[in-house]
Amino acid sequence: MRKLYAIGIGAGDPEHLTVQAIDRLNRVDVFFVLDKGSEKADLVRLRQEILDRFVTRPGYRVVLAEDPPRDRTPADYRAAVADWHAARAEVYEQLIRTELGPSGTGAFLVWGDPSLYDSTIALIEAVLARGNVEFEYEVVPGVSSISALVARHRTTMNQIGRAVQLTTGRRLAEGWPDGVDDVFVLLDAHTTFDRFADEGLQIFWGAYVGTPDEILLSGPLTAALAEEIRRVRAEARERHGWIMDTYLLRRPARE
Amino acid sequence: MRKLYAIGIGAGDPEHLTVQAIDRLNRVDVFFVLDKGSEKADLVRLRQEILDRFVTRPGYRVVLAEDPPRDRTPADYRAAVADWHAARAEVYEQLIRTELGPSGTGAFLVWGDPSLYDSTIALIEAVLARGNVEFEYEVVPGVSSISALVARHRTTMNQIGRAVQLTTGRRLAEGWPDGVDDVFVLLDAHTTFDRFADEGLQIFWGAYVGTPDEILLSGPLTAALAEEIRRVRAEARERHGWIMDTYLLRRPARE
Repeated sequence: MRKLYAIGIGAGDPEHLTVQAIDRLNRVDVFFVLDKGSEKADLVRLRQEILDRFVTRPGYRVVLAEDPPRDRTPADYRAAVADWHAARAEVYEQLIRTELGPSGTGAFLVWGDPSLYDSTIALIEAVLARGNVEFEYEVVPGVSSISALVARHRTTMNQIGRAVQLTTGRRLAEGWPDGVDDVFVLLDAHTTFDRFADEGLQIFWGAYVGTPDEILLSGPLTAALAEEIRRVRAEARERHGWIMDTYLLRRPARE
Repeated sequence: MRKLYAIGIGAGDPEHLTVQAIDRLNRVDVFFVLDKGSEKADLVRLRQEILDRFVTRPGYRVVLAEDPPRDRTPADYRAAVADWHAARAEVYEQLIRTELGPSGTGAFLVWGDPSLYDSTIALIEAVLARGNVEFEYEVVPGVSSISALVARHRTTMNQIGRAVQLTTGRRLAEGWPDGVDDVFVLLDAHTTFDRFADEGLQIFWGAYVGTPDEILLSGPLTAALAEEIRRVRAEARERHGWIMDTYLLRRPARE
């Protein structure tokens, strides 16, 4: 039977690869790379570097495919994401059917950990649910972007005995989440931390974490620091043509 | 100058080790192992297996130390934890001062990821703050217990665009957290999921994840499944003398 892997390849540092990930990379006939546009060419190259460095088994292929475009300003966010996922499932199914022999092994390489704000697992499940192609699949966990962020800042995710929230920029814009003092924010294109400046928080921010282009900024989240992060972020985004950043907002626990 | 590493060694499967972790393991003169009592002898052995498998540099030492006892039924939970951390900082400082030469390299090996409900980073910072010994230190991120759990269940941490909470059994006992549909529960000795049976949730539970003793149970969280997990958990704990388990509670997103 066909076999698929969703392999977490860590947050940007090739040395985040696990022994398990390297083992699985070396069983793969076809790596599927969904190109999200030229602005992410750095990431495609970094992925190729990982293959060059860690795959010793000869004869693998890399199949590039176009990722369907996504409505970035939808009226209904969840419906738009669902439509986009359906279009992507179609692409994934075609790739698996046409590029993989009946006993072939394919893989999707996922930045960070495949379980955290990534759609690969949902897409694989969607392809299975369509029932047009059969395969087994395995998820290989990786070092997540948030683990990498706090490791570089040498801090923890949680304060002692406290809860942590992982959320999106979009949700944070609705206000500080109830009942938590530590909030990781992913997928934030709008520097939403801005609106929490001068409220006694700390921020731990990082971009391109684990790569040679890594930028780290942290400290009490004053308006000045918020402004500095905005400026540094905008400059880096301009220079690279893309940015991948995350941050932790920490409210010192009071009880 | 002395150098210390806090190295994430993954959630139980030696193949979770990263290339970076293996590189750092091979720079270490002294590994510090804090023995939490005979019931965790399996974990000490698993750690030794990791060293035997991945450390090729000869001449390293493993120094075992007694972890100070902890008040398990304190009136004031946070104060008791703080007292315990202070006693542990004392032990860590002694280890670093007496076991590590002035340019020696030491390491603490941490299950999962050092940033998630683990005290090693806080303890290292506490030793630095005491000012009696100087050293540099680096945190090496690892595959977290929650990444490992959801990978084995082939599910994601978050539903599309939704928030996720990481919390403790103690906090979950206070009620379902506000504003989230996905809750990871760690450090839960009291099967707190019980009180959420028959409320339309799903549970993804795992014990000894990534090891040959791994047990996975999942499905709609009915009273019957809660009862089954309680039974399986109690039997496994009896058989092994210890248990390390985590779970994800998922409320299907409604909007």
